[in-house]
Amino acid sequence: MHVRSTPDGEPAYVEAQVDREDGEEVWWRASVPVVNAELGYRFLLETPRRRMWLNGLGLSTADVTDGADFRISTYDPPPAWAEGAVLYEIFPDRFARSSAHPITDLPDWAVPSDWDDPVAFGTPNGTKQIYRGSLWGVAEKLDHLRGLGVDALWLTPFFPAQSNHRYDASSFDFVDPLLGGDAALKELTAQAHRRGMRVIGDITLNHTGDAHPWFRRAQTDASSVEAGFYYFEADRKHYASFYGVPSMPKLDHRSEEMRRRLYEGPESVVARYLTEFGLDGWRVDVAQSAGRYGAVDLNARMARAVRATMREVAPDALVVAEHQFDASETLRGDGWHGTMAYAGFTRPVLSWLGADDTPELWGTPGRLPVYGGEEMVSVMRSFAAAIPWRSYTHNMTLLDSHDMPRFRSLVGSERQRLGVALLMTMPGMPMVFAGDEVGVHGALHNEDGRRAFPWDESVWDRWTLELYRSLIGLRREHAALRSGGLRWLHADKDFVLFERAVPGETVVVQVSRAAHEPLVAPFAASHLLGGPDLTPGAAMPADGPAFHVWSRV
Amino acid sequence: MHVRSTPDGEPAYVEAQVDREDGEEVWWRASVPVVNAELGYRFLLETPRRRMWLNGLGLSTADVTDGADFRISTYDPPPAWAEGAVLYEIFPDRFARSSAHPITDLPDWAVPSDWDDPVAFGTPNGTKQIYRGSLWGVAEKLDHLRGLGVDALWLTPFFPAQSNHRYDASSFDFVDPLLGGDAALKELTAQAHRRGMRVIGDITLNHTGDAHPWFRRAQTDASSVEAGFYYFEADRKHYASFYGVPSMPKLDHRSEEMRRRLYEGPESVVARYLTEFGLDGWRVDVAQSAGRYGAVDLNARMARAVRATMREVAPDALVVAEHQFDASETLRGDGWHGTMAYAGFTRPVLSWLGADDTPELWGTPGRLPVYGGEEMVSVMRSFAAAIPWRSYTHNMTLLDSHDMPRFRSLVGSERQRLGVALLMTMPGMPMVFAGDEVGVHGALHNEDGRRAFPWDESVWDRWTLELYRSLIGLRREHAALRSGGLRWLHADKDFVLFERAVPGETVVVQVSRAAHEPLVAPFAASHLLGGPDLTPGAAMPADGPAFHVWSRV
Repeated sequence: MHVRSTPDGEPAYVEAQVDREDGEEVWWRASVPVVNAELGYRFLLETPRRRMWLNGLGLSTADVTDGADFRISTYDPPPAWAEGAVLYEIFPDRFARSSAHPITDLPDWAVPSDWDDPVAFGTPNGTKQIYRGSLWGVAEKLDHLRGLGVDALWLTPFFPAQSNHRYDASSFDFVDPLLGGDAALKELTAQAHRRGMRVIGDITLNHTGDAHPWFRRAQTDASSVEAGFYYFEADRKHYASFYGVPSMPKLDHRSEEMRRRLYEGPESVVARYLTEFGLDGWRVDVAQSAGRYGAVDLNARMARAVRATMREVAPDALVVAEHQFDASETLRGDGWHGTMAYAGFTRPVLSWLGADDTPELWGTPGRLPVYGGEEMVSVMRSFAAAIPWRSYTHNMTLLDSHDMPRFRSLVGSERQRLGVALLMTMPGMPMVFAGDEVGVHGALHNEDGRRAFPWDESVWDRWTLELYRSLIGLRREHAALRSGGLRWLHADKDFVLFERAVPGETVVVQVSRAAHEPLVAPFAASHLLGGPDLTPGAAMPADGPAFHVWSRV
Repeated sequence: MHVRSTPDGEPAYVEAQVDREDGEEVWWRASVPVVNAELGYRFLLETPRRRMWLNGLGLSTADVTDGADFRISTYDPPPAWAEGAVLYEIFPDRFARSSAHPITDLPDWAVPSDWDDPVAFGTPNGTKQIYRGSLWGVAEKLDHLRGLGVDALWLTPFFPAQSNHRYDASSFDFVDPLLGGDAALKELTAQAHRRGMRVIGDITLNHTGDAHPWFRRAQTDASSVEAGFYYFEADRKHYASFYGVPSMPKLDHRSEEMRRRLYEGPESVVARYLTEFGLDGWRVDVAQSAGRYGAVDLNARMARAVRATMREVAPDALVVAEHQFDASETLRGDGWHGTMAYAGFTRPVLSWLGADDTPELWGTPGRLPVYGGEEMVSVMRSFAAAIPWRSYTHNMTLLDSHDMPRFRSLVGSERQRLGVALLMTMPGMPMVFAGDEVGVHGALHNEDGRRAFPWDESVWDRWTLELYRSLIGLRREHAALRSGGLRWLHADKDFVLFERAVPGETVVVQVSRAAHEPLVAPFAASHLLGGPDLTPGAAMPADGPAFHVWSRV
C-alpha cells in the first residue's frame, strides 16, 4: 500500500504501514508531506494478483486521471462553528411581519399583499408583491428557529431594490427600509447572537439593479469611474446583463474601484456588513458566472479577494457561493468555503425520490432523470470526488430554496421525510427553506414556493415539524453526523445504506423509498430514533418508505 | 437532442436538428456560440424512455461532472504542419558521427566511448560516456529520416553541459562544440528544411546545471540578480534542485530577469534559437513541475509566456511539453500545444502488449498493470476526455523515448509491430525514438536504450524497418489517419477495432494481440496493407498477433 501525491507537480510515493486491524478492517498509516497549498492524493494497492488505485470514485484496476483524487486544502479553514451547521433560509418579505415595527411606507413599484394572499407567480406582479415581512419580524421569531435547532440564518438580500427578491440592488449603502432598515438588521444579528445563532447575508457580485446609482451614473456619464463598472457596448446603450435582463446590468470586475467598493478591503460592502452589522458571513449569488464575460475571467480572482477581505475583517465568517452545476473548478484555491450543493445533493435526491415527470431545473430541457439508489449514490460520489473534503463538508446541502419549487410539492409528504433524513444525516451544512418544516407547498414555479410563512399553527404539519426537530436534534447530539467521515455501505434500487464515523462513534443510516429485500446485519447497532436494533446475522428492516438511524455498539 | 455549453459559467442549451441520416447513422447539427476562449460542451439526448448525457466518456443516464465534457479551445491553433506529423527523437551523442567534422576535443568530465561500446547504464559513467555523435552527423543522415517518412526531428538538448544527456545546461548561449557548435545546428536545420523536414529543440525550464554561470554567480554573490534565479535556503548553501540532485538547481520563475533571459520576449533563449538557428519549435523538459515550488505555482503562467514569445517571433513553431501523468490541467489556457502522451498512450499500450512482469515507470512502485483491450481503450478514452481535442491531436504519442527502456525489449519484436500499428494509426503526433525502426534494444534501464545507432545495415531488422516505412507511408497518404476523428468500434480482451474519418474517407483499424473470435463485418472495406477485404455479413479476420487497416468503400 502506497500513497501517491504530486508535490510540485511530480508524483511521489510513500509506503503505508498497517496501523491496526481487527476481524473486519485493516487501517494503514502513511506520512505524506504537504509541500503545496493543495494536495491531491490517492492510494496504490498491490496484491499478489493485481494492483488497484483508490481515489474518490473507489477502486480502479486501470490507470485513472487525477480528477477524482482525494484533495487536501491547507488554506485557512472554514470557521469551526460552520462544521455541519444547520442553516435556515429566510426570504425576508415572506417570513414574519412585526406588529411592534409595522412596515407602512411602500415604494411605487410595490404591489401590497395580505399575508394570506397567493403568490402571483409567473406574472409581472410575481416579483412586485410585498407582504411586509421585515427583519424586525424575523428577530421576533427567533425562538421558533432556536426550537428547531437552527445554527445560522441565511437572509436573502436585504438591500434596497425594485423587486421583492432584491437581487437587483439599488444600493449597498443601507438596509432596505421596507425590511426595517439598518436598525432592524442590527437588532436581528444581536438577538440571534444572544441565542447562539449566526446570521448570513446574501450579496450579488454579478450585477446590480439598473436603479443603482452606480449604473445611473455610468449610463449618463461615460467619463465617470462608474462607467467602468459595467460592460457597455460601443453604442453606450446596450450593455451586458444577467441572463439578458436589462434591469440587472452585469458588473465588470476589471474595475479596481468597483472591486474596492464592493468586496476588496475593509471599506467594501462585503466587509462593512460583517464589521458594522454583526453579520457572520455571506451567501454569494450567481457565483458561477460573476466576474466572467467573454474573454474576461476574473471569477477565481474574485473568490480569493472576497475571502481575503473576510479573513482580514472577520476571520470567523463563512462564505458559501451559489452554484447549480459542477462547482469543482470554483472550489480550488483560497476562495469559497463551499457552494450550494444543487448538483451533488438536491438533484440526485430528487431523481431518486421524485416522480417520473419531475420537471427539470435551471432551464435544462426535458424532465429530471429518474434514478435508482445506485445511481443517486454514484452521482453523489462523483460530485464529491471532484472537490476537497472540506468543501464537501461546507457545501450547503438543500432539498429546495427560493429558486425552485418546494421539495414537498415535488415528492409528496411521505418522501419528503426521506429527503429530510438524507439532508440531516449526510455531510454538509443542511439548509431548511423557511416553511419546509411545517409543510409549506409551492409546486409549479420557484416564485410559488416563496409563500408567506403560515404562523397559524393550526395549518402546520406537526408530523413534519417533529421530524425536522428530531433529526436536527440527533445531528446536534452526534458528532458523527455533524463532522464524521462518510462510507457508503450499500446502494440498491429502493434503498441506500451508509455510515458516518468519528473516532469513538459510528452512526449507520438506512433510507428506503419502498419495501425491499432485507440485508443481513453485519454488526450490532442500537436504534437512535425508535425501531428495531440490529443483531449480527439477523435481517435488517426492509420496510419502506422508511428510514432508520443506528449507533454501532 | 440538445447541446449544453457553459458560456460565462452558466449552462445554456441549444436544440440540435437532424442534418442527415442513412441506414446506419443519424447526424445532428447545432450552432453553439463560443463566447469564451475555451468552450466545454456535451450532448443531452432524450428518448421517450430515458435521457442521457454524451461527453468524452460516452453515454451516461445519470448526471455527470464537467471533467469529461468535450472541449474547444479558440486560442491560436498549433501550426498546420504539425497536424498528425511524424516525429523522430535523436539523442545527438548517439545518432551519427560525422567523418567530415569529427569531434576531437573532449571536456574533462567525458568518458570517450567507441561507437560499438555498450552503455554503462546505471553506473556513474552512464551519463559521462561520449560516443561523439554530432549535429553534423545528424545532418549527414537526413536521407535515412526522409526515407522513413519523418516530418520533424526532435533533438534532445544541444546546449553545453556536464553530461551526455545535457539536461544540466551550463550555458544557453551557444550550441555545445562537442556536438559541432552553432554552425552544425544551423547546417542541420538548413538541410532539414531543404528536405521539407522540421527540427525541434529541447529546453529545460525547470533547472540549469550547477556549472551554469548563472548558478555560479548566484552561489558566490548573494546580491547578484542571478541569486534570485534559484531557491536558496537561508544558509545560502542548500537550494532546491531537480529530484534533490544538487547538480540541477531549480529555477525560481518569480525572477523577472530569469524569465526575460530564458523565455520572455525576442531576446530570450526560447526566441533566439527559433529566429537565429532556424529551429521550428521546442520540446519542454520537466514541464509538469517547472515553475512550481511549495507555495509558488507559476507553471501555467510559464506555459503562456513561452507560447506568447513563440507566437511573437515564430508563429509557425510548435511547443510540446514533457508530461508523464495526467496533463489535463497543463493543457488549459493558451500554453503548450500538446504534451508527451506517456499516460494516455504509452502506458495503456504497454499494459496491453507487455508481459505480466513489465516494470513500472517513473518511480511508481510495483509492476505495470496488465490490461485487456477494453481497459486499454478505457484508459485512452479517459485521458483523451480530459483535454481539448486539439491538444489530443497534438500530443506526442510514443512507444518509448530516451527516458525509458525500449518498447521492443519490453514486448518483443512481434508485439512491437502491434504497438507501431497503434502509434501510426491513432490521433497524435507519433514519435519514433531513433533506432526503434531498425530493432535497437535496451531493456533494463532508460540509459540502456540510449545505444549508438547501428549504421551497419547488416544488423538492422529489415522487417521492422519496412513496417515503419509502410505505416508512415499510409499515414502520409490518408488524411483520415493524420487528422481524422476517432471512433472506437469494439474492444475485447485480445483485440481492438476503431475508425478514423475525415469527410469522404474512413479508415478502419483492427489490432489483435492474439487469435480471437471473429466479428461479423458490418460494412464493406478494402484492405490497405494486403490481406482480406471486408464483406458485409462475412467474418472479419481473427488471427493474432496481427493488425489490419481497411478503407471503407
